[in-house]
Amino acid sequence: ESLQVTHSDKSLVFADLTAEEYKSVRDYMWAEEELKISHSLTAKTSENFLFLIDLLLPRKADVLRYLDSSGPKPAREASVVVFYGEHGYLKEYVVGPLSGRLQHRDVTQEKYNTSQLPFTARTVTIGEYVQLFTLLNQVFKKLEKPLSESFGYIPQKRQLLPFEGMPRGIKAGDRKTWISFFRDYSGMYIHPVGFEMLINHESSNSSKWTVDRLLYNGQYFNTINEFMSKYEAGGLKKIVYKEIPNHASLKPRKKPSGLGPQQYYLKGKRFSVKNNQVIYLDWSFAFGLSSLTGMRVFDVRFKGERIAYELSVQEAMSVYGSVTPGMILTKFLDSSIGIGRFAHELVRGVDCPYAATYVDTYRYIDTNVAQRFRNSICVFEHDIGRPLRRHFSDFFHNGYGGMANSALVFRTITAIGNYDYIWDFIFYQSGSVEARVHATGYISSSFTDDGNLQYGHQVAKNVLGNIHTHFINFKVDLDIVGVKNIFQTKDMVYKEVPLPWMPSEKAKIPQLVEKQIKTEQEAAMRHGAKTPRYLHIASNQTNRWGHHRSYRLQVVSFAGDHLPESESTERSMSWARYKVAITKHKDAEQTSSSLYSQNYMWSPFVDFSKYIEDNETIVNEDLVAWVTAGFLHIPHAEDIPNTVTVGNGGGVILRPHNYFNEDPSINSPDGVYFGPG
Amino acid sequence: ESLQVTHSDKSLVFADLTAEEYKSVRDYMWAEEELKISHSLTAKTSENFLFLIDLLLPRKADVLRYLDSSGPKPAREASVVVFYGEHGYLKEYVVGPLSGRLQHRDVTQEKYNTSQLPFTARTVTIGEYVQLFTLLNQVFKKLEKPLSESFGYIPQKRQLLPFEGMPRGIKAGDRKTWISFFRDYSGMYIHPVGFEMLINHESSNSSKWTVDRLLYNGQYFNTINEFMSKYEAGGLKKIVYKEIPNHASLKPRKKPSGLGPQQYYLKGKRFSVKNNQVIYLDWSFAFGLSSLTGMRVFDVRFKGERIAYELSVQEAMSVYGSVTPGMILTKFLDSSIGIGRFAHELVRGVDCPYAATYVDTYRYIDTNVAQRFRNSICVFEHDIGRPLRRHFSDFFHNGYGGMANSALVFRTITAIGNYDYIWDFIFYQSGSVEARVHATGYISSSFTDDGNLQYGHQVAKNVLGNIHTHFINFKVDLDIVGVKNIFQTKDMVYKEVPLPWMPSEKAKIPQLVEKQIKTEQEAAMRHGAKTPRYLHIASNQTNRWGHHRSYRLQVVSFAGDHLPESESTERSMSWARYKVAITKHKDAEQTSSSLYSQNYMWSPFVDFSKYIEDNETIVNEDLVAWVTAGFLHIPHAEDIPNTVTVGNGGGVILRPHNYFNEDPSINSPDGVYFGPG
Ligand SMILES: [Ca+2]
Ligand SMILES: [Ca+2]
Ligand SMILES: [Ca+2]
Ligand SMILES: [Ca+2]
Ligand SMILES: [Cu+2]
Ligand SMILES: [Cu+2]
Repeated sequence: ESLQVTHSDKSLVFADLTAEEYKSVRDYMWAEEELKISHSLTAKTSENFLFLIDLLLPRKADVLRYLDSSGPKPAREASVVVFYGEHGYLKEYVVGPLSGRLQHRDVTQEKYNTSQLPFTARTVTIGEYVQLFTLLNQVFKKLEKPLSESFGYIPQKRQLLPFEGMPRGIKAGDRKTWISFFRDYSGMYIHPVGFEMLINHESSNSSKWTVDRLLYNGQYFNTINEFMSKYEAGGLKKIVYKEIPNHASLKPRKKPSGLGPQQYYLKGKRFSVKNNQVIYLDWSFAFGLSSLTGMRVFDVRFKGERIAYELSVQEAMSVYGSVTPGMILTKFLDSSIGIGRFAHELVRGVDCPYAATYVDTYRYIDTNVAQRFRNSICVFEHDIGRPLRRHFSDFFHNGYGGMANSALVFRTITAIGNYDYIWDFIFYQSGSVEARVHATGYISSSFTDDGNLQYGHQVAKNVLGNIHTHFINFKVDLDIVGVKNIFQTKDMVYKEVPLPWMPSEKAKIPQLVEKQIKTEQEAAMRHGAKTPRYLHIASNQTNRWGHHRSYRLQVVSFAGDHLPESESTERSMSWARYKVAITKHKDAEQTSSSLYSQNYMWSPFVDFSKYIEDNETIVNEDLVAWVTAGFLHIPHAEDIPNTVTVGNGGGVILRPHNYFNEDPSINSPDGVYFGPG
Repeated sequence: ESLQVTHSDKSLVFADLTAEEYKSVRDYMWAEEELKISHSLTAKTSENFLFLIDLLLPRKADVLRYLDSSGPKPAREASVVVFYGEHGYLKEYVVGPLSGRLQHRDVTQEKYNTSQLPFTARTVTIGEYVQLFTLLNQVFKKLEKPLSESFGYIPQKRQLLPFEGMPRGIKAGDRKTWISFFRDYSGMYIHPVGFEMLINHESSNSSKWTVDRLLYNGQYFNTINEFMSKYEAGGLKKIVYKEIPNHASLKPRKKPSGLGPQQYYLKGKRFSVKNNQVIYLDWSFAFGLSSLTGMRVFDVRFKGERIAYELSVQEAMSVYGSVTPGMILTKFLDSSIGIGRFAHELVRGVDCPYAATYVDTYRYIDTNVAQRFRNSICVFEHDIGRPLRRHFSDFFHNGYGGMANSALVFRTITAIGNYDYIWDFIFYQSGSVEARVHATGYISSSFTDDGNLQYGHQVAKNVLGNIHTHFINFKVDLDIVGVKNIFQTKDMVYKEVPLPWMPSEKAKIPQLVEKQIKTEQEAAMRHGAKTPRYLHIASNQTNRWGHHRSYRLQVVSFAGDHLPESESTERSMSWARYKVAITKHKDAEQTSSSLYSQNYMWSPFVDFSKYIEDNETIVNEDLVAWVTAGFLHIPHAEDIPNTVTVGNGGGVILRPHNYFNEDPSINSPDGVYFGPG
């Protein structure tokens, strides 16, 4: 049977750039002679490099006019980032219109209030890594004897694999990276060898890069020569190389036997994907995948009525503890490397059910040609395995009514170095949407050393699994019956009241406490603080029973402590202070983090706390909720080889609360009812 | 293909009584002449009634000797509760051995430290309800005119359906029940009519029962006559009956179209259920269903090693707010009515997947013959729809390893009046077990009246959905490498340390904080208090890497506020003070609540807080964790007709934490790996 649905091309206003569009923007930029952009995939740091081309999201007001009031289609434009090695700065451009004769406009000043961004704020490119590997090879040549004796290093045969700590230094402008070395194994991340190196690669001229410090088996050395002479002199604790089995191997130890349950669509799929639009029963939405921030959906509608303008991943952050220099300062901000960038092909039957619909994506980031990522989004309907609702009665009126919980899952998985994040947006027939992330893949680890058990547990021979936090930020731009909304909280309190039929007796009774929060700062709910249990984005319009139509944000989080604000790097992740923060929507406040946050942590170009510093009113405004979920991760032996997803996740459920006049699932074709025969 | 597993009959030590066993105990008790027990299903309150026959769990030490040291099989015995209407007290007996010549022993004194339990502490039986309905019919006859004009009451044709508030009074010994009346519709619970009645049914002689108060449309009356005369005189605000459509109907409004995804076992089931034992891949456990407390599993083993002795539901509690007398005091303690009692037949394809294995249960509670509940437990393997683990790498070493998350679900659903609780124990291939409960079914409601919006939201015409809490208690008797365990907590703290390679610079770094908690009172973690993020039941034995082998308790809860301890009813639910409490195991502390808690709330016979009052050491003892999860429920229009399960749940995940030397799922036959071709 084939599904009868009517897709709309209007969703294309949110569509990622096509391979052709990337190419036309790239060719245009390359052709601009005065920009002198290298065509090389591995442009040197001293060259000019076109790092990123991505969709420039059109202004929300323009989009709404287009979607809702037959306004003109917003111009399609690209956002472009160029790393100017020749000049030692970075710039951002808008290039467009993609449908016409291309032009570029430098938007650095208007976006960041500076005419150029500092060169060290940039992401390390593949080109820079090539230069770093060249340097490492030179160093390794000088260290061949200790590396071979200690770690089994054999040039061109058995390598030491590098893993970088971040931030790269301790103040703005630094680009001094501690690199830790790992065994040449799959799953290197849990094979630290006890050797780390501090490299200063601040200069755009790689010949000026230096090795500033070495760590060998817990001992520090200022220079290669110092290390070599002490090593030769025998004045240090040596590590002696031993072959070990690869405890990081993911190869199954048992042959497949039997087969777990498989889900099938016996009567065909009940959802349809066309271009970048999904239609599923009463739901429809547009989708995209930002190279930087990852998965996102727009114009999310239920029964034709828009509930959310945007629901998107913003940032994935981790703060580590360690005694080793490669990890002691480490704070990863993944959107600076690119979250969506690492949305690779999904494996049928493991990453998503076999029968899911798979969608290709195209990206242009740290490359010289747009890349296709086959089957990198999956969409499927899933039986949650637990009824959505049911009731059985065997007295007064006998009967049974119920409904299986079949929901639509929209998923990407991003493998960013060691970690794999599984990102899900789930659309339920009761009108709820859930944003969920689960972590899996390899933990980061360090070589065991004195005092390291203060920073984690030993998880394998000589391997410490380092304690760390996971914080994930979602942007939730709900539009409840239009864009003008209010922020309401609800909770309970016990109040002592006299019993109405015998007022001499009193009892403490749960009462409903409702509050409207009117300013951005009051609406910024810190993790530690007691927060009202119900948080609502509401309309002034009421449902049939006189209550504000609203969606409730139910945050599911097991987050650890956020970095103290006194730390110099904290402002680059100030979104993580808040479980939920509500801002007045601004086109200029599109993201809570930025490409430059990781490498310029001390003076970030996007500091989320600034969004609420002006403490604007949030009464009858277009509101955006920024939701942070996460978990504290104290690694344990069962994280070897991979962290499992069970219990390692967080997210937010967006639930209708007096939005409708009754549960919309009562209209589902999946409802079941029977009475006595 | 048929599954090759070896079941053990030893699990039968935990098996519920068989229909034959119930019968033999009943017949024995009936035959004991001096007990004078009525044979009637609807014995009057003035008669002696055999209320309950249930398995008496054998002592843990005896069971462990039987299971682990080829000790003798513990005697099989029944626990029996008799309501002595003739004498005005209750007694409990042990009857056994079930395999031999039965005898009975009065255990009231040893269990409750009193030779007899007060008569008003008992559950209301079907027999008492019959007498209450007789009274109601007499009253209704007198009220026929107002009831007919106001509520469309027509004797024998259109009824008013009753719903009771609890507790039944304000002090020990009271049995004064506010009954609220509802329209004669399916889903009556959301059809309040605005009429309530206070009935004193304290006496075992029902002819002495009285109507003590009436509430009509917000107005109180001391007697039927007062109400009638004021009604006739026209001196009150009247309700005029109107037919309305049944907004509680669960009948689907749309015809089935299409079909949601269905799960199948293409190569057969990978689990086996025999008697009361389940074997699933590396897992095995015994199961049972207590009429009072509900679902429970015992001797839970992974790879043959016992992880939990018992995991069981203990209590489901709700505290309501209202202006109406029928709900203002209401605090439901479901195990006093019987949670397992209401585990009815599960509906294939809705309550559990079509292909699940269904198991019958047998019970003897408030009856005169053992009852069979067909297909009242389901067991199935489910594809959670998200990988258990996965990692993809496209640099250094390319490869993909992953595994679908197929887990075993053990489920009952108990429809206790308006609410349906879905109880799940989930067994994961990574060695985790999850206990989960979700709420669905009908909310409780009251007729709208002045001031009632302080207690909830209006959810339908004249219907207030009353604010309430849900608190659920689980007993988690983990035995980690034997019964001698310790209680450990782990968390993080930021500590300022100098950077080892430049000590003049300092940074705040996450550190691991481990603590052992040594006494019961320190281990009682209140809901509001800041609790360490990781809670572990641990062995003094260490894993290969030197860490205490442990299971972590990860509580998932959105609980509201617990009733203030100053309230006279609080001690009947004192388990709900704590998110997690750890006690030293005692056979005498089998449950956190009791059959008598609901109707004797003010002076409960089981007060959980007493278990920790002696503040015993919990170092190297057999530890039991008592876990409370729940959620605050502020009803909204989408609770009509039924509350949906999405977001309305809680539970606890029991996760191995350094219990193994690595993730056991690496040995699963479901693992998938591939490298570059
Ligand atoms: Ca603002
Ligand atoms: Ca909005
Ligand atoms: Ca104790
Ligand atoms: Ca124990
Ligand atoms: Cu982690
Ligand atoms: Cu509820």
